[in-house]
Amino acid sequence: MRRTSFARWPCSIARAVDILGDWWTPLILREVFYGVRRFDDFEQALPISRNVLAQRLRRLVDEGLLDRVPYSERPLRFEYQPTEMGREFWSVLAAMSAWGDRWLDGGKGPPIVLHHTECDHDMAATVVCSHCRQPISADDVQSRLGPGYPDRLRRKARATGRFG
Amino acid sequence: MRRTSFARWPCSIARAVDILGDWWTPLILREVFYGVRRFDDFEQALPISRNVLAQRLRRLVDEGLLDRVPYSERPLRFEYQPTEMGREFWSVLAAMSAWGDRWLDGGKGPPIVLHHTECDHDMAATVVCSHCRQPISADDVQSRLGPGYPDRLRRKARATGRFG
Repeated sequence: MRRTSFARWPCSIARAVDILGDWWTPLILREVFYGVRRFDDFEQALPISRNVLAQRLRRLVDEGLLDRVPYSERPLRFEYQPTEMGREFWSVLAAMSAWGDRWLDGGKGPPIVLHHTECDHDMAATVVCSHCRQPISADDVQSRLGPGYPDRLRRKARATGRFG
Repeated sequence: MRRTSFARWPCSIARAVDILGDWWTPLILREVFYGVRRFDDFEQALPISRNVLAQRLRRLVDEGLLDRVPYSERPLRFEYQPTEMGREFWSVLAAMSAWGDRWLDGGKGPPIVLHHTECDHDMAATVVCSHCRQPISADDVQSRLGPGYPDRLRRKARATGRFG
């Protein structure tokens, strides 16, 4: 298992990575977006042990991506529903999927095709600038320290020369 | 360590996850996008053992995200440069970072602010439909089996009711 916690790093990628915990978690979330809600259905959908599944679901509830909601009183049974925070993570999975479709399809085309019901076209998720809506690349983006960067680390961060 | 390989799953998320291997890998790639190229600089930038770092870099070279290029003849020394495949992964990290900024900033604002030099505005990475350029959510997207989905698994996949 991972030895280093990234949760307190002043980096939103590291914080997201820390919550995800390991790579089962994005696949569990993928199942949520396919409509899976119940423990036994997750277990059937993924080759994962009950133990690991229970732990990952608990973490997703604790971190606020899933709600654990009763769907039966007798016997008492729960299902997992995505919160707004969880639903918004879908866009990260969509971006990951588009990259995988482009680079990991083995020349066979995408295994899954996404269709945007709003505009009624097949589509790939595309990552754009929130202001100009043009696709962005690392070359066109500069980073600078933001309000959430801890004061005590600013001098050290600036010394790396990464931040304007 | 992870026991299950996702590389052959008919799912671009799972395949991407398999390459990434563990969560150090996105952080190593993050450093690449900050301009880090050399082993010692990665080691200084991340609290990672030389052993794990060497293994993750080797995997990224093997999978085609990084090129290992000599920068000195005597002594022979190498640096790691992102390939086109590697550079395009930046958009996945940008989407992950935007999600983390929104949900994991602890009320302090983003630790790092991104500035789009093309349009000269601060921005958040936004995931949109490649056709209509509107932001997408899981509710507006349907999945169906694509050309890369293995024939032998189609019946089983359709039986899950996930795919139109």
